[in-house]
Amino acid sequence: MTITAINARNQFKGRVVEIIRGPVLSEVDVETAAGIVTSVVTTRSIDTLNLEVGTEVLTVFKATEVLLARF
Amino acid sequence: MTITAINARNQFKGRVVEIIRGPVLSEVDVETAAGIVTSVVTTRSIDTLNLEVGTEVLTVFKATEVLLARF
Amino acid sequence: MTITAINARNQFKGRVVEIIRGPVLSEVDVETAAGIVTSVVTTRSIDTLNLEVGTEVLTVFKATEVLLARF
Amino acid sequence: MTITAINARNQFKGRVVEIIRGPVLSEVDVETAAGIVTSVVTTRSIDTLNLEVGTEVLTVFKATEVLLARF
Amino acid sequence: MTITAINARNQFKGRVVEIIRGPVLSEVDVETAAGIVTSVVTTRSIDTLNLEVGTEVLTVFKATEVLLARF
Amino acid sequence: MTITAINARNQFKGRVVEIIRGPVLSEVDVETAAGIVTSVVTTRSIDTLNLEVGTEVLTVFKATEVLLARF
Repeated sequence: MTITAINARNQFKGRVVEIIRGPVLSEVDVETAAGIVTSVVTTRSIDTLNLEVGTEVLTVFKATEVLLARF
Repeated sequence: MTITAINARNQFKGRVVEIIRGPVLSEVDVETAAGIVTSVVTTRSIDTLNLEVGTEVLTVFKATEVLLARF
Repeated sequence: MTITAINARNQFKGRVVEIIRGPVLSEVDVETAAGIVTSVVTTRSIDTLNLEVGTEVLTVFKATEVLLARF
Repeated sequence: MTITAINARNQFKGRVVEIIRGPVLSEVDVETAAGIVTSVVTTRSIDTLNLEVGTEVLTVFKATEVLLARF
Repeated sequence: MTITAINARNQFKGRVVEIIRGPVLSEVDVETAAGIVTSVVTTRSIDTLNLEVGTEVLTVFKATEVLLARF
Repeated sequence: MTITAINARNQFKGRVVEIIRGPVLSEVDVETAAGIVTSVVTTRSIDTLNLEVGTEVLTVFKATEVLLARF
């Protein structure tokens, strides 16, 4: 099914630069304009989405998941 | 207390460009190198952190919160 | 941008049956085959997605967000 | 301790149909009225809850974790 | 429905000491042995669970939601 | 970069008492005044933060991640 829009306000395009596969979950590192965004997804999803190094992806996260820190 | 390091792999610097205050939660929009990152935090935190438009902040989110989509 | 696939393993179709708008966040109740799925999203997203009662939507959530309980 | 009610608005009953064990986290697939709900929990929890294929469980997730997409 | 066990490894008992009601979400502050745990839940849940100042509750959160920081 | 304050309202100090390493994610158990708080973080973070049994850490989680249950 094709999705035309998703509510998450945070969506950044990038390219997969590394995948670390685990038995259940895998880490996917995505190079974006802001730097590397790291995602942990089920290993099954890696295969379902057919992700590999070089794949263009959209990283998506909800606003409620973002913390703010002062430095 | 000063924090010297936090485990979240996703940390992006930016500047607050808008705050929408609600009675319990508020939306904070932060301009980063990748574009606007939107965060929803408790309104109390806005005051505790003394956030206002122009404040430099770090946006932080865990790798487990990031979804990946193909387009 | 059109998304062709998203990694979240939990995706259920439904129809919006109620929207409770708040200043920052809104509650959207979606009738699915399993019953009502409740989502809280930014009020801005309601407008961006042009959601109203009757709209068909996909509810999406990550596997890491699901708790299991015995009863 | 017996819990009489939990605040999460999303609670769906089902039956465990598959468990993929990892060293730290495991995937549990639960068949519900809406289809398979996938959960990732600590492997320790699998043992503490004594989960196995066939166990009846309640899948629980917070409304703030649900994204909405149009298709 | 009575729940006999839930998988979340983090469960701390406490007593509600403050409720800040919003139109959609409300903040509930719970005094525990470790100090105040703050929870944000839907306002509907406040009513469904019949929460008020003084109510004994269990605060529950998944291990995947916890960040670690050095100081 | 040193962080002077973070918005998450839930921050509890403790000492690492156990680490279970996985290929992608690891479990870190932290003894706090309220009991053990369990965190799951990327294994890379364990190394970046140089965490080991005995390390003093701050456990941090957002108010939106906390569920409330009655018992």
